[in-house]
Amino acid sequence: MEPFTKKVCRSWNVPSSQFAKNTFNPIRSIVDGMKLTPNPEKDMIALSIGDPTVFGNMALPVEAEESVIEAVKNKKFNGYGPSFGIEKARAAIAEYSSREGYTITAKDVVLTSGCSGALDLCIACLCNPGQNLLIPRPGFSIYKTLAESHDIIVKSYNLLPNKSWQVDLTHLESLIDDTTAAIVVNSPSNPCGSVYSKEHLIEILNLAEKYKIPIISDEIYEHFVYSGNTYYPIASLTETVPVLSCSGLTKRFIVPGWRLGWIIIADKNNVFEAEIRKGIISLSQRILGPSSIIQGAVEGILTKTPQSFFKETIDFVETNANMFYDNIVRIPGLHPVMPQGAMYMMIGIEMEKFPEYTDDVTFTEALVHEESVFCLPAKCFQYPGFFRVVLTIPRDKLLIACGRIAEFCKRHYRDGSGGGDVKVNGSN
Amino acid sequence: MEPFTKKVCRSWNVPSSQFAKNTFNPIRSIVDGMKLTPNPEKDMIALSIGDPTVFGNMALPVEAEESVIEAVKNKKFNGYGPSFGIEKARAAIAEYSSREGYTITAKDVVLTSGCSGALDLCIACLCNPGQNLLIPRPGFSIYKTLAESHDIIVKSYNLLPNKSWQVDLTHLESLIDDTTAAIVVNSPSNPCGSVYSKEHLIEILNLAEKYKIPIISDEIYEHFVYSGNTYYPIASLTETVPVLSCSGLTKRFIVPGWRLGWIIIADKNNVFEAEIRKGIISLSQRILGPSSIIQGAVEGILTKTPQSFFKETIDFVETNANMFYDNIVRIPGLHPVMPQGAMYMMIGIEMEKFPEYTDDVTFTEALVHEESVFCLPAKCFQYPGFFRVVLTIPRDKLLIACGRIAEFCKRHYRDGSGGGDVKVNGSN
Ligand SMILES: Cc1ncc(COP(=O)(O)O)c(C=O)c1O
Ligand SMILES: Cc1ncc(COP(=O)(O)O)c(C=O)c1O
Repeated sequence: MEPFTKKVCRSWNVPSSQFAKNTFNPIRSIVDGMKLTPNPEKDMIALSIGDPTVFGNMALPVEAEESVIEAVKNKKFNGYGPSFGIEKARAAIAEYSSREGYTITAKDVVLTSGCSGALDLCIACLCNPGQNLLIPRPGFSIYKTLAESHDIIVKSYNLLPNKSWQVDLTHLESLIDDTTAAIVVNSPSNPCGSVYSKEHLIEILNLAEKYKIPIISDEIYEHFVYSGNTYYPIASLTETVPVLSCSGLTKRFIVPGWRLGWIIIADKNNVFEAEIRKGIISLSQRILGPSSIIQGAVEGILTKTPQSFFKETIDFVETNANMFYDNIVRIPGLHPVMPQGAMYMMIGIEMEKFPEYTDDVTFTEALVHEESVFCLPAKCFQYPGFFRVVLTIPRDKLLIACGRIAEFCKRHYRDGSGGGDVKVNGSN
Repeated sequence: MEPFTKKVCRSWNVPSSQFAKNTFNPIRSIVDGMKLTPNPEKDMIALSIGDPTVFGNMALPVEAEESVIEAVKNKKFNGYGPSFGIEKARAAIAEYSSREGYTITAKDVVLTSGCSGALDLCIACLCNPGQNLLIPRPGFSIYKTLAESHDIIVKSYNLLPNKSWQVDLTHLESLIDDTTAAIVVNSPSNPCGSVYSKEHLIEILNLAEKYKIPIISDEIYEHFVYSGNTYYPIASLTETVPVLSCSGLTKRFIVPGWRLGWIIIADKNNVFEAEIRKGIISLSQRILGPSSIIQGAVEGILTKTPQSFFKETIDFVETNANMFYDNIVRIPGLHPVMPQGAMYMMIGIEMEKFPEYTDDVTFTEALVHEESVFCLPAKCFQYPGFFRVVLTIPRDKLLIACGRIAEFCKRHYRDGSGGGDVKVNGSN
């Protein structure tokens, strides 16, 4: 009964699936393609990695550490729990995320493997192949990676650097069509550090309402806003638009490796009741949820970490943002955009003033080569002509980095109008 | 510039994606569909859940607990690591999994969220929609769930209950065609408890070699074999067939909740070099790997847990297997198949002797209703006519359960030949 198509002696040839080939992180491929050879005479300063633990100057709250140790010793958190998370953890997150007029209950919370896992579930649940997902530009690359691997089409809506990276609403609206499955909103934002006002969030909600498009809100930087700014969960500002709000312990508690994220199904209007709730829970069964030890610790982490911990973290980052801004804004050819939150700042490069470099990639490559300072070219965020710096760096390194960037720019700046500038101290 | 298709006032209607709809756990839907009303006069004994922690009689090794606490206190395991796992953890797993003639190095190991996460990555990487994946019947349901959600076709090859659940090689071969992307092998097996001999594993490898089909080997029960049996990693028995071997801490270390699994890319023949290695690493970027705390603890867990821990665990389960077998084999109408490893036993029901029940589902339903003993109908493993019991249960409960099963069978057994049996003690 061998089928005719059966050939016994074909040779070994095992290709990977299209899904694997399409799961593609643009940051990795841009960075891997760069020639990153630091200047051997200067120690490397990496302003590229969005991991607040890398410099060793920022640490998790001691209460988080204690909560995990307690959870281990408790011995009750070693077995399988529900794939969407244990009740105790979901209830704690619901409590932590509720505010006046915006009540979350445990059943609205699904635990995931980091915010990445949350976004993966939301995108995979809301969008079919061929439908489109609207994402911010500049924006975090994972939306595109996750969507395109499922043959979901991404369309990027513009953010406006001159309006603190608010959404270009006209552009966003022009992208909406009948196959638009969801809009991703990210505030506070990576890479921009922007924090949207209540009014602006409502403008976005109004568009979602007009076209009846659900929102995936990436709020992994929730509460991480500088003085004078206020954080609003977008879901708390609507009675009708269904929102999947994604967050986690990663950034605020400085434990990116722990991989605890969550989805809040915010759906006052019962739009997600018919299918989406069930779909998200089904998808959570693929990997059976985040580690039970961290789940067991979540309640302690969320309730015991003192406000002073958050305040100190944000104060430190905000002061860094100001120092960075003040230093960079004085460098001819560079145009920093002051952030209002999160851990990053975007800096525009007046490319025509640096004619040696074709784009942000070659510019940042040369900065590594000459000054051993690595900033991420914003091509990684689909926004060429800028680069991004992380603001979690120790202060002494920050100042050294700013000095080196200034030197680099001075050396390579050409003022087209005068044309009289000379190369001060060329290398390479 | 509004596209013509844009309709402003459609009403809210947000369906879930086909991918979410297709991510479907047959066990859940069978169990959720059962009327599980225990007899209020008897305490419930659940022989249904493959989680060795549920009864409280089996606990993780103290060394595992200590290793996690150490990893937390160490403070070096809070940041992002590579999505495929930190070097130290991968090296420890490589060392743990190597044996004579079968050397694994850290670069062959990819960490995942449990063995489920490992299987998810392997299946998604090896198979395209429309291709087929060969899986065992009876078999663990997740292979089907993961594959079908990606529109991969599953074809089940038969296991032979009368030959200790060995693979029906003729049937397996008959299923292979040009679109067969991989064969899943599971030994030691859930639900069968079978452990394949070296010779049988080589027979399977020979088929894979003949048709050049890679193997996904689910070895989450590695080393979990009863006296007189030997565990061989299938990958250690071939020089040519490429194998993705999936395992984890889950069962052997009794920590299913911790969600630490791994893939070993066993590929002496360099077949996976071209695409699969890269594909698996790409896919690991979707959720960025298992929790760093557990990753940091893996080395301690694998190297410090004493052999006596494993021996005690297996001795306990093996004794349970023998006791179960001896009790069940004496019950007219039931036909247990003695396992050689893992934590389960399959028991055949001579359905015609229990004419009140149409199938294994209604049979096990009635067993709950009358005796408060819940066994999983093997329909959950695509094998109607059997049920599965877990062997990790405390001994006193085991004996009570066996007694109740005997009572139930006695009450409902009808010997067609004689026709003289009467209902002894009916209820319901
Ligand atoms: C905007 C944004 N969303 C999501 C993530 C992923 O977070 P997690 O590490 O919890 O998966 C990041 C990480 O940098 C981020 O910047
Ligand atoms: C055969 C088999 N494979 C895989 C798994 C999943 O293991 P994990 O909990 O590590 O995802 C199980 C769990 O019961 C199993 O029985």
